[in-house]
Amino acid sequence: MAATVSLHPLLDQGLPKGRAGFSGSILVCACADKPVKVKVEGDVAHNHACGCTKCWKPSGATFSVVAVVPHDKITVLENGDKLEIVDKSALIQRHACTGCGVHMYGPVEREHPFQGLDFIHPERFEDDGWAPPGFAAFVSSIIESGTNPDDMPAIRARLSELGLTPSDCLNSALMDYIATWTAKKSGVLKS
Amino acid sequence: MAATVSLHPLLDQGLPKGRAGFSGSILVCACADKPVKVKVEGDVAHNHACGCTKCWKPSGATFSVVAVVPHDKITVLENGDKLEIVDKSALIQRHACTGCGVHMYGPVEREHPFQGLDFIHPERFEDDGWAPPGFAAFVSSIIESGTNPDDMPAIRARLSELGLTPSDCLNSALMDYIATWTAKKSGVLKS
Repeated sequence: MAATVSLHPLLDQGLPKGRAGFSGSILVCACADKPVKVKVEGDVAHNHACGCTKCWKPSGATFSVVAVVPHDKITVLENGDKLEIVDKSALIQRHACTGCGVHMYGPVEREHPFQGLDFIHPERFEDDGWAPPGFAAFVSSIIESGTNPDDMPAIRARLSELGLTPSDCLNSALMDYIATWTAKKSGVLKS
Repeated sequence: MAATVSLHPLLDQGLPKGRAGFSGSILVCACADKPVKVKVEGDVAHNHACGCTKCWKPSGATFSVVAVVPHDKITVLENGDKLEIVDKSALIQRHACTGCGVHMYGPVEREHPFQGLDFIHPERFEDDGWAPPGFAAFVSSIIESGTNPDDMPAIRARLSELGLTPSDCLNSALMDYIATWTAKKSGVLKS
């Protein structure tokens, strides 16, 4: 099945390995000349394969690989003048390199359960060892990017085989987290 | 576990049984006097347990039980003057009895993959035998109605035990259906 279903270059061969004690690295865009460099301190959290139409993906990939880090762990080191926000109305303010198109970091700035977190693509790290993806989100959305609906059973089976339980929204832990935040904000649950 | 987790009076004892050839029935609201009666021709489809905060639930239930039928299979028989739309801005135009609060039918009228379908609560049918629930949707949302987040693992386990695979959105079949409709509308997929 692996031969017929391509998810992402990093996932098709099995998941990348994490390393205990990974303490961060530098994200580098794909430009040969004057690449954007962004330093991230500490490991990533909630790393996952994402099927949404907005996340950056390498050429040929069906899913993105995307994770979060606290905003204060991010520092633009070089060529930040090449960055531009893809869609200022979106929840995630994706800062893309105008040279190569790679999204370097995407902060959530407005009031939201994810406020204060930045979405990043750890495959752009100079170093290996970051926490590997643990689930697959927004799987049905890959149809909106042109995946044949008939291929979905094989794609979900392949994700499950890799240990990336497929969901058509976020995983239950994050969905419960969002609902809990909402219930506290409305006063239904006490803080 | 069944004793400690209450989902819905109809589900807590195990799922109701469907009957091949069920050809419809009459929905009746909970009013003792002048009940609203709505005739439905044919069986329901996509019946499921729903955790969203908007669907009508009987007293004490954590989930609603809700299904769809084509709009042209619905006829208001009696006391339709008691019906009022709960929220005119919502996708589902839930028609509730102003006497008892039961939602009798909810058409989707605007352009949407579900346009032409009405959401109904088959537990209000006079007769048994309608297609039983097949999955659970918007499970995390029950936290927004006050369920303790710590109870979620037991609730998801109980749903799975009943054969109602829990999802925090709709099930994959419907999510793929929505994505396919969207992809055809955008031109990404050919009709």
